[in-house]
Amino acid sequence: MNRQASAPLLANEDPRDSFDDQERELLKQESRKQISRERRRMCLCLGLAVVLASAAAITTTYLLTKSTNTFTPGRSRNVIMMVSDGFGPASQTYGRSYWQYINNHTEGVKTSLDDILIGASRTRSSDSLVTDSAAGATAFSCAIKSYNAAIGVDPNGNPCGTVLESAKANGMLTGLVVTSRVTHATPAAFSAHVVHRDMEADIAVQQIGDYPLGRQVDLMLGGGRCFFLPNTTAGSCRLDDRDLIKESRSYGWEHVVFNRDEFKDLIGEDEILPLRTMGLFHPSHMNFEVDRIRNDKLEPPLHEMARVALKSLKKWTTRGHGFFLMIEGSRIDMGAHNNDPVAHVHEILEYHRTIQVVRDFVADNPDTVMISTSDHETGGFTLGLQPDPNTYPDYLWRPEVISRAKVSTEILTSDLILFHTANKNDDAFDIQGQASRRHQTQDFVRKEILEKGLGITDATEEEIEYLSNADTIPNDILRYLGHAISRRANLGWTTMGHTGVDVNLYAASSVQNGNRILDRLRGNHENTEIGDYMSWYLQLDLPSITEKLTKSADKWFKPKSKFFTAEHSHSLHEETGH
Amino acid sequence: MNRQASAPLLANEDPRDSFDDQERELLKQESRKQISRERRRMCLCLGLAVVLASAAAITTTYLLTKSTNTFTPGRSRNVIMMVSDGFGPASQTYGRSYWQYINNHTEGVKTSLDDILIGASRTRSSDSLVTDSAAGATAFSCAIKSYNAAIGVDPNGNPCGTVLESAKANGMLTGLVVTSRVTHATPAAFSAHVVHRDMEADIAVQQIGDYPLGRQVDLMLGGGRCFFLPNTTAGSCRLDDRDLIKESRSYGWEHVVFNRDEFKDLIGEDEILPLRTMGLFHPSHMNFEVDRIRNDKLEPPLHEMARVALKSLKKWTTRGHGFFLMIEGSRIDMGAHNNDPVAHVHEILEYHRTIQVVRDFVADNPDTVMISTSDHETGGFTLGLQPDPNTYPDYLWRPEVISRAKVSTEILTSDLILFHTANKNDDAFDIQGQASRRHQTQDFVRKEILEKGLGITDATEEEIEYLSNADTIPNDILRYLGHAISRRANLGWTTMGHTGVDVNLYAASSVQNGNRILDRLRGNHENTEIGDYMSWYLQLDLPSITEKLTKSADKWFKPKSKFFTAEHSHSLHEETGH
Repeated sequence: MNRQASAPLLANEDPRDSFDDQERELLKQESRKQISRERRRMCLCLGLAVVLASAAAITTTYLLTKSTNTFTPGRSRNVIMMVSDGFGPASQTYGRSYWQYINNHTEGVKTSLDDILIGASRTRSSDSLVTDSAAGATAFSCAIKSYNAAIGVDPNGNPCGTVLESAKANGMLTGLVVTSRVTHATPAAFSAHVVHRDMEADIAVQQIGDYPLGRQVDLMLGGGRCFFLPNTTAGSCRLDDRDLIKESRSYGWEHVVFNRDEFKDLIGEDEILPLRTMGLFHPSHMNFEVDRIRNDKLEPPLHEMARVALKSLKKWTTRGHGFFLMIEGSRIDMGAHNNDPVAHVHEILEYHRTIQVVRDFVADNPDTVMISTSDHETGGFTLGLQPDPNTYPDYLWRPEVISRAKVSTEILTSDLILFHTANKNDDAFDIQGQASRRHQTQDFVRKEILEKGLGITDATEEEIEYLSNADTIPNDILRYLGHAISRRANLGWTTMGHTGVDVNLYAASSVQNGNRILDRLRGNHENTEIGDYMSWYLQLDLPSITEKLTKSADKWFKPKSKFFTAEHSHSLHEETGH
Repeated sequence: MNRQASAPLLANEDPRDSFDDQERELLKQESRKQISRERRRMCLCLGLAVVLASAAAITTTYLLTKSTNTFTPGRSRNVIMMVSDGFGPASQTYGRSYWQYINNHTEGVKTSLDDILIGASRTRSSDSLVTDSAAGATAFSCAIKSYNAAIGVDPNGNPCGTVLESAKANGMLTGLVVTSRVTHATPAAFSAHVVHRDMEADIAVQQIGDYPLGRQVDLMLGGGRCFFLPNTTAGSCRLDDRDLIKESRSYGWEHVVFNRDEFKDLIGEDEILPLRTMGLFHPSHMNFEVDRIRNDKLEPPLHEMARVALKSLKKWTTRGHGFFLMIEGSRIDMGAHNNDPVAHVHEILEYHRTIQVVRDFVADNPDTVMISTSDHETGGFTLGLQPDPNTYPDYLWRPEVISRAKVSTEILTSDLILFHTANKNDDAFDIQGQASRRHQTQDFVRKEILEKGLGITDATEEEIEYLSNADTIPNDILRYLGHAISRRANLGWTTMGHTGVDVNLYAASSVQNGNRILDRLRGNHENTEIGDYMSWYLQLDLPSITEKLTKSADKWFKPKSKFFTAEHSHSLHEETGH
């Protein structure tokens, strides 16, 4: 049909025709309108589609290139801050190569840390290019540089709000899981405020909740029982008679366990710990992992405490909130302070296992970020040594030497001192008796200490002689044993203290939109930026906590002037390192 | 109008009516069809829009999360491989802190390397957990692990194609810019194939083009003139009388310059070097930067050579091709071998300046990737020391001590030996003469060596005595001087050789789609993966080069058996480190 054919009809004035024509026209108009509407709809839809497409592209771009920080309503965020105390770059290479060696892995095999390396953290404190753990942890917890020995206080010695406290203020659950005393520098800097790290008795008081903010920690696992017991109790480290275990009940603490069996009874088969539980598994620091495994009824390993803490915090966290958990491989540092490559490497391997546990958790739980870094390097540890300055050094180090050792030099030193002490007290005063005692001592040194303990079967006479001398002081024995095995493994140390090298920064995230949320953590950062990052991600408000703490400071806080002049809590840290 | 109104008309058999009805129906049908078509079109368009939207989103996602490697036709890619030889993690912290100290920068200020840190490189070789520079560079150049001392050969000692050779085969320009001898391990491993690094005479022969592939390098700047001069020339390091400077012409080399003035004359004001230019600015290694600046007419600094090489390669590269340039801060390593924190830090600062030059180039030139990493750490260098084992170590190190030193210990050792030698030859045999000579020597040691050279004004009698002894061997003087200043700065060393710690990996890119092209380099990698990456990005074919080299190997290549039994080219590397 075409216009020509129907045209004559239009000339006819028949109203029907006219009507038909009108109808036809209307129909056509209607059809055109409909088409127009459809076209408009289509245009609208197309426009919308284009807008959506652009939006999708832009959003994707944005989400992928920018880190966003908008809370999804009703969803909770979790941060797990992992601290590998005293774990420098060389220690990670060392741990990996040793682990590859004992497992016959090829060179390319990666540890749980390797593929989540994202940058480095600079460690200097406000008063030195070489930090201690107190200033190092305060940089993470308060996001400020402070002086060496500062626990949750600023360079002037005034309290600063921590990420743990601010997380608690936002309704989150909080936990501390460590292998040192819980009152030691790193956990202390998240949960207490004192002008010097040695004030561990005061730290314990604040940790149970006896300070303006009240109880801030929901789970606290580690060593350090002695600072919670009154000085009327054997093995207390307190100078006063406060029984903090007892007092802790009034701040809401419900359970305290002292060993792994009690811990297991409490967690049951589902491994859920009730909130407000303290696990204080050792009077002081927990045992080195290499020693713990010989008597593993007493203390849980770090990765077990971490797993239980994660399961429990997940279980008890309420909708819309989340948790902040600090987990520390505390004694990686102490192995290095002792220049003991054996204790050091087993702490590292246990840290790797713990990282795997946490990574598995992160993978299974949305909106969870794990950061792992160190406060500083310890020992000036290097994978190479020139034992004889007159000979060009060998380019190698020997993991097999380390693999033969079974005991930390800390325990061996203690064993040797006990042996010397016992022998000193015997009554063999005649020459024959003295010779026999001397022989016994040398035998003990050769077999029990060097062979069974360190796997050293080629001890020199000079070494036996040195270690058989009952007058050698413990720290010298400790260093001597560490260097005896390090030299054989061609591993070097430059100090029993800390060094200033940047430390590795690792992170994993299950946050929606891939891992772009970690982008702002990539590269090289000051340690304070780790604190900034956690604060940003959890939308915390540290200044408001600082304000609260400062307001009533004169009622509870011992200022710098007081500590540095009059008071000195007894110092334990020099025996086991900072 | 509605159906009801027109329905009676349909009952009428008037053909017109009928026609009209048909027409109406047809019109309606047509209209419906048109609407349907429009709808279909709309659906198609909508579908297309959705597809496009999805595609856009997916592409964006892909581009942003995956690294793509499709050459844009007509555009060339450039790779600049920066090697900081012997530069471990502690050395970067050291260089930055020192630089911050002398410039009064605050703690957060970043060096040219800091914000491009993207991961770490593992350095072990095929036969040791501690590599040398030869195996380290071969891992980058051939993307394979080989044995310590291997130059562009596999673990069996067979030649392997390098990224430089494969880039050349693809029509790219190539360059080597170093501060060591150009025949030294790192540049050699990119441009030659010998079973032992000490075969530098053979390396030079291959570098001019006398091997199956012919001349492969377009610009070669550094030290090492002695290996290009016949043994009839004073200061030649060759055992034969080949004049490689002369021979090089037949392989296309057009210009050879021996000092900075000649270099400047050649580059002119626009700083463009003609292709096929060798700059051999020193008979052996170029001077340490800290020494070079005292006589800067002779040798250009690394960042100047780098800037000129970049401008020149950019100028001469042809459309569709690009360039491969290896730039090495060669003597960072040698400062560390000498345990000389002064030479070491000035090499690092010059490397930082060079990085800035290269980063500026990268920012201005599309499709350019710069990778910077080290082959290994040297010295077991640490930013902390325990000078007295009986005292708890200080947590600090002192940049101010280093800032007072003006001369490398290498030059000071040489000066001292010259002084001793001159004094030995005088004829003062009487007691008074001997006393006077002794006094003169002590004076020289105190004032010229320690005060003016190292900025040490508190030298002990013991130190003066030790250094005044004319019988002390050079290497002992070298180490003694290095340790004298390191101890005062509280810096530690465990060896004059290498160590096994992972080294930092840095990268910058001007490639389209942001920096996602670098994503596959992020994290922790084996050093061979750096080679793999360059090969991937430049779409190289290393195996085909290996095949070419192997085919005629019996005609030009000296196998392992020959070198390791019969032949030994004289070894220079022990004096200045590997």
